[in-house]
Amino acid sequence: MRPSGRDVSEMRPISIETNVTKHAEGSCLIKIGDTHVLCTASLEARVPPFLRNSGLGWVTAEYGMLPRSTGSRMRREATAGKQGGRTVEIQRLIGRSLRAGVDRVAMGERQITVDCDVIQADGGTRCAAITGGWVALRLAVNKLMKAGDIISDPLTDHVAAVSCGVYAGQPVLDLDYPEDSDAGVDGNFVLTGAGKMIEVQMSAEGSTYSRDQMNTLLDLAEKGISELVVAQKQATES
Amino acid sequence: MRPSGRDVSEMRPISIETNVTKHAEGSCLIKIGDTHVLCTASLEARVPPFLRNSGLGWVTAEYGMLPRSTGSRMRREATAGKQGGRTVEIQRLIGRSLRAGVDRVAMGERQITVDCDVIQADGGTRCAAITGGWVALRLAVNKLMKAGDIISDPLTDHVAAVSCGVYAGQPVLDLDYPEDSDAGVDGNFVLTGAGKMIEVQMSAEGSTYSRDQMNTLLDLAEKGISELVVAQKQATES
Amino acid sequence: MRPSGRDVSEMRPISIETNVTKHAEGSCLIKIGDTHVLCTASLEARVPPFLRNSGLGWVTAEYGMLPRSTGSRMRREATAGKQGGRTVEIQRLIGRSLRAGVDRVAMGERQITVDCDVIQADGGTRCAAITGGWVALRLAVNKLMKAGDIISDPLTDHVAAVSCGVYAGQPVLDLDYPEDSDAGVDGNFVLTGAGKMIEVQMSAEGSTYSRDQMNTLLDLAEKGISELVVAQKQATES
Amino acid sequence: MRPSGRDVSEMRPISIETNVTKHAEGSCLIKIGDTHVLCTASLEARVPPFLRNSGLGWVTAEYGMLPRSTGSRMRREATAGKQGGRTVEIQRLIGRSLRAGVDRVAMGERQITVDCDVIQADGGTRCAAITGGWVALRLAVNKLMKAGDIISDPLTDHVAAVSCGVYAGQPVLDLDYPEDSDAGVDGNFVLTGAGKMIEVQMSAEGSTYSRDQMNTLLDLAEKGISELVVAQKQATES
Amino acid sequence: MRPSGRDVSEMRPISIETNVTKHAEGSCLIKIGDTHVLCTASLEARVPPFLRNSGLGWVTAEYGMLPRSTGSRMRREATAGKQGGRTVEIQRLIGRSLRAGVDRVAMGERQITVDCDVIQADGGTRCAAITGGWVALRLAVNKLMKAGDIISDPLTDHVAAVSCGVYAGQPVLDLDYPEDSDAGVDGNFVLTGAGKMIEVQMSAEGSTYSRDQMNTLLDLAEKGISELVVAQKQATES
Amino acid sequence: MRPSGRDVSEMRPISIETNVTKHAEGSCLIKIGDTHVLCTASLEARVPPFLRNSGLGWVTAEYGMLPRSTGSRMRREATAGKQGGRTVEIQRLIGRSLRAGVDRVAMGERQITVDCDVIQADGGTRCAAITGGWVALRLAVNKLMKAGDIISDPLTDHVAAVSCGVYAGQPVLDLDYPEDSDAGVDGNFVLTGAGKMIEVQMSAEGSTYSRDQMNTLLDLAEKGISELVVAQKQATES
Repeated sequence: MRPSGRDVSEMRPISIETNVTKHAEGSCLIKIGDTHVLCTASLEARVPPFLRNSGLGWVTAEYGMLPRSTGSRMRREATAGKQGGRTVEIQRLIGRSLRAGVDRVAMGERQITVDCDVIQADGGTRCAAITGGWVALRLAVNKLMKAGDIISDPLTDHVAAVSCGVYAGQPVLDLDYPEDSDAGVDGNFVLTGAGKMIEVQMSAEGSTYSRDQMNTLLDLAEKGISELVVAQKQATES
Repeated sequence: MRPSGRDVSEMRPISIETNVTKHAEGSCLIKIGDTHVLCTASLEARVPPFLRNSGLGWVTAEYGMLPRSTGSRMRREATAGKQGGRTVEIQRLIGRSLRAGVDRVAMGERQITVDCDVIQADGGTRCAAITGGWVALRLAVNKLMKAGDIISDPLTDHVAAVSCGVYAGQPVLDLDYPEDSDAGVDGNFVLTGAGKMIEVQMSAEGSTYSRDQMNTLLDLAEKGISELVVAQKQATES
Repeated sequence: MRPSGRDVSEMRPISIETNVTKHAEGSCLIKIGDTHVLCTASLEARVPPFLRNSGLGWVTAEYGMLPRSTGSRMRREATAGKQGGRTVEIQRLIGRSLRAGVDRVAMGERQITVDCDVIQADGGTRCAAITGGWVALRLAVNKLMKAGDIISDPLTDHVAAVSCGVYAGQPVLDLDYPEDSDAGVDGNFVLTGAGKMIEVQMSAEGSTYSRDQMNTLLDLAEKGISELVVAQKQATES
Repeated sequence: MRPSGRDVSEMRPISIETNVTKHAEGSCLIKIGDTHVLCTASLEARVPPFLRNSGLGWVTAEYGMLPRSTGSRMRREATAGKQGGRTVEIQRLIGRSLRAGVDRVAMGERQITVDCDVIQADGGTRCAAITGGWVALRLAVNKLMKAGDIISDPLTDHVAAVSCGVYAGQPVLDLDYPEDSDAGVDGNFVLTGAGKMIEVQMSAEGSTYSRDQMNTLLDLAEKGISELVVAQKQATES
Repeated sequence: MRPSGRDVSEMRPISIETNVTKHAEGSCLIKIGDTHVLCTASLEARVPPFLRNSGLGWVTAEYGMLPRSTGSRMRREATAGKQGGRTVEIQRLIGRSLRAGVDRVAMGERQITVDCDVIQADGGTRCAAITGGWVALRLAVNKLMKAGDIISDPLTDHVAAVSCGVYAGQPVLDLDYPEDSDAGVDGNFVLTGAGKMIEVQMSAEGSTYSRDQMNTLLDLAEKGISELVVAQKQATES
Repeated sequence: MRPSGRDVSEMRPISIETNVTKHAEGSCLIKIGDTHVLCTASLEARVPPFLRNSGLGWVTAEYGMLPRSTGSRMRREATAGKQGGRTVEIQRLIGRSLRAGVDRVAMGERQITVDCDVIQADGGTRCAAITGGWVALRLAVNKLMKAGDIISDPLTDHVAAVSCGVYAGQPVLDLDYPEDSDAGVDGNFVLTGAGKMIEVQMSAEGSTYSRDQMNTLLDLAEKGISELVVAQKQATES
């Protein structure tokens, strides 16, 4: 049924390799099937102007795709002179999602920038970026705590994301690129480790969906997220 | 409870004035309380390159805020040299939402651009833009049909949008600016006249929400949308 | 003779509605026939760097056209990535004109930004912007004086503007769009309430004019300005 | 009285050296006192899209200042990423002025771009650019006529420009930089060889002027233009 | 003597992993010590306009650094709105170097774009990019030849690059970041497999060098290049 | 043999006219044959942020070409919205070269910006810019020393540059445009008055070269530089 032969509720293989770059305070290479995203967390002493002297920390994110991460070469955004609309939308989502799992008082007045760069794309890059971005963030915070710079853990829970959609009339978990291109309805679901919701974005392009379908997709998402959280734990707690 | 004294499930006053500009093929000034958005629909013969010779039509949207539509003056995006991330995200949402109610085969190979310019902002500008944008689109399509350029109606249903959120611990309908600034959870809901869902975006900033809360907000949204659709009908069917 | 049937020295109907937006310190919607411009005056505490600690105030202006204010849709300048040459030239003219009627010492070290956004265009938008911009400025200054922030009135006189040109060989007052497109010679005249001149710009595109013709156009302009000043008074002194 | 010791109606020394660069179809270095502008005319076969197949020619202009043409170094516009408002306004004026002296039918469907680059600035650069730009244009057209590419002369008359203003209460001709910085009223006058007017721009910055003063300045301008036209003739007719 | 303990003529460990991304026609991850660069070669049917219908092929290159490839996070060029001067200079060098080893007639009218993205930087990124870029190019060309799209091999020889410099008064091979930051003289040498020179760039920052020193650095470079070419062969001929 | 009839080791005529603009602290117009570059040195009190309170000075350079300095008109970079890759590469080279001859401690915490604007191009503009840029720098420093602002001379030696290349199989000195367009190998050599090397850039476009050829070009370059230094001395020591 599915081009990959997967069950409707079957995730692609998940792999999270940590500490893949020597400079970043936290980093991982997350692979969700053929979607590979390099996530780094960079610690900076300064916060944005609107937070100066507030005592609050900030987590922000940036997202990019290497020009040949895709089937045909995309124009490099640096030569186009600006980030495209899709890029901006995605990196705002990543930042907002990660901040939902952060106690910004406990974090103290510092900023962590999470960069998510897609090395190879096969659908679901924004979800992989959130899931891997959290791992990079976790590792950077661990370093701050080990150094005694932060006393109480500012990360309140895991944050992970998965996409679901209606493909060939069938609700399915974790869309890959061939499915994503064909799905009339698809959604991105960002949840905490405890199953609380941070962000739900369900869109129909040239189509609509019912509340029942929405609930089915949500059930699938909860299953996928729980598997992603297990992988995050294995990656960060070893 | 609410700063405006409204009931939790009470919309702000809705007003839709049509044909407010003599040049556009369709136009309206929509007022949702103190949020005022001018929506125009412009018909163009050409479609974007990826649709040439496809026989399909295209509906796209652009969004802007006048510099003093807000409490303190915002920098004009034309002088900043680019549209900000929020603007891009909103106009992509408007276009996607309107296209969900369009039969692009029936529309034929033409493009309609819906411009939504915020004259005065008091929360919920993107929802007002979608609701008013549909009215402008409806009027432009009416003109095409009256002229015999289109035979069967390409608009398959109404499209309208409303925001809901959790304010002071209470789920409420149609957030105004003071509520929006304080809501830990807020969502934008785009539905058809028949109550089918086109887009749901529920975000928590520095917070999370449960599936129960999500369902309560959805119930409120359905109530609000039905009132907006009545207003759309009154505006376009007279 | 004139497409609109007007006399050579007849202005289009003038309407100035004040306080049209709740956020701006001063605002009006000015209509000169089918040309409609929304003018807002925004008060800011800071002055540009070159005036810091000078004790002098500053008045500046920005101008924009909504994409479908015109017969065919214009590209939004925010997506083009910059303001076009015509826009820049016009907003410099508006700022310079308004400053000519301001005592910048009496104003004190504050800045007022006048935004002029064209809702509907039918010729003469820059002149309507100056005339309406002065009304918005007057209302903002009134508010400062009522609050006791300014003691003596910094506005030394009315400032208003009108276009004249040679259409079909005939000097005419207040060109509308069909006339403007065809006029070989046209001018913009900015005068004070007392009839003193602030700015005269007379251009021939592919043509020339004599000193006699210039004087005839000036006579027409003086007549038009006096009517505009009456309308300004009615709008601001009620 | 005047910082330079000149009479109120005395121009600065005028020098026009032609054919100063080997590549351009027409070129000159014009010196009005210490204001030095290099003007080149470049012939191109193509016209802008709006003129294709119209049979009409086009003359356009661009203007620039070298970074150290001024008393203190200005930022290079190429590094700022765009032309400033003043630059755009000036180059539009130059193009409009030169076109007023061109019979675009006789010119045929070709474009001439006049580049005016200020080598050294001491006030009046836009007027020097128009006067010198006409010389470059004349030389390029001569070349076309000599080659038989154009039969009848498309240049209908000389075009020259001069500034006048009220300095220290006194109307004076041809403002240099110290005068220009201090003048409350100043104007740029573009006339033909026959004394017909092409463009008049008279501005008051923080001041106003009467019709009498305007006429006095115009008289001065006519005197200055006639001297500039003599210099143009000497440069191009030898 | 050297911070890494290497001999003056000792390269860092070289590793070239091929076919690291499933989309690109050719790809490798080259590691020169802690400098890691991902190189992809993308085949495109079109050539730049200046080569249309010339029968000649084109090889071009783009270069980028991930924001946290460096010790402290660098601003992403896509958000800065343009590629910096250093980036532009490097990617022009890579393209020029690779083209020197290409028979553009044999290649036929097609373009190969080599993207070099620095995953981790520790000095010598441009040299690693050239050396790895050639491997990606070789693999993409192999694919074209296997498919019979190209008959005779357009790659005339290997192309590889290495940096040398004077560190602590001592000429050394293959500068790493700590050496590069301190070297008064450093050079990049691009050679073919046969030892012919393609590009030599030797710069002194705040210093100078003699012809003797230049010759010593060239000797070192020749040694390094021969080791890099062995590694290229092992990577592409297996 | 050479299009110009010059000997293989013959420079074009060299002319350096100093103090050509009244505003710059130092300036010259350098002509190497038909290549004419205007060089100005501008003194500024501030240094770039990375040097504040370091006690060190800074010399930087910018480069530009007038639109019609070339055979066919080039687009003005200010209208293109950015400096092209070639421009950026050249101005970085000029700055680096000039700094190699500066004792930045003796210079004190001030900045000199050298602008090199090409008035007419016929090959070798970057070398002319370096050679002329040094003259402008020398004159500006002389002024500082005469005024007593600097005690000991911060210029440690002359800096000059020349290009050499292989044209029609023959190594030649000082390539003009026809030669440069055809040369398979060409190099730019920046040397001090004492013959020490600052920068060597030798590139082959679609070709390679041997070490012997490199040495021959270097010999030619040394001869050319010595003649340029004589011209610099005549220009600055009179």
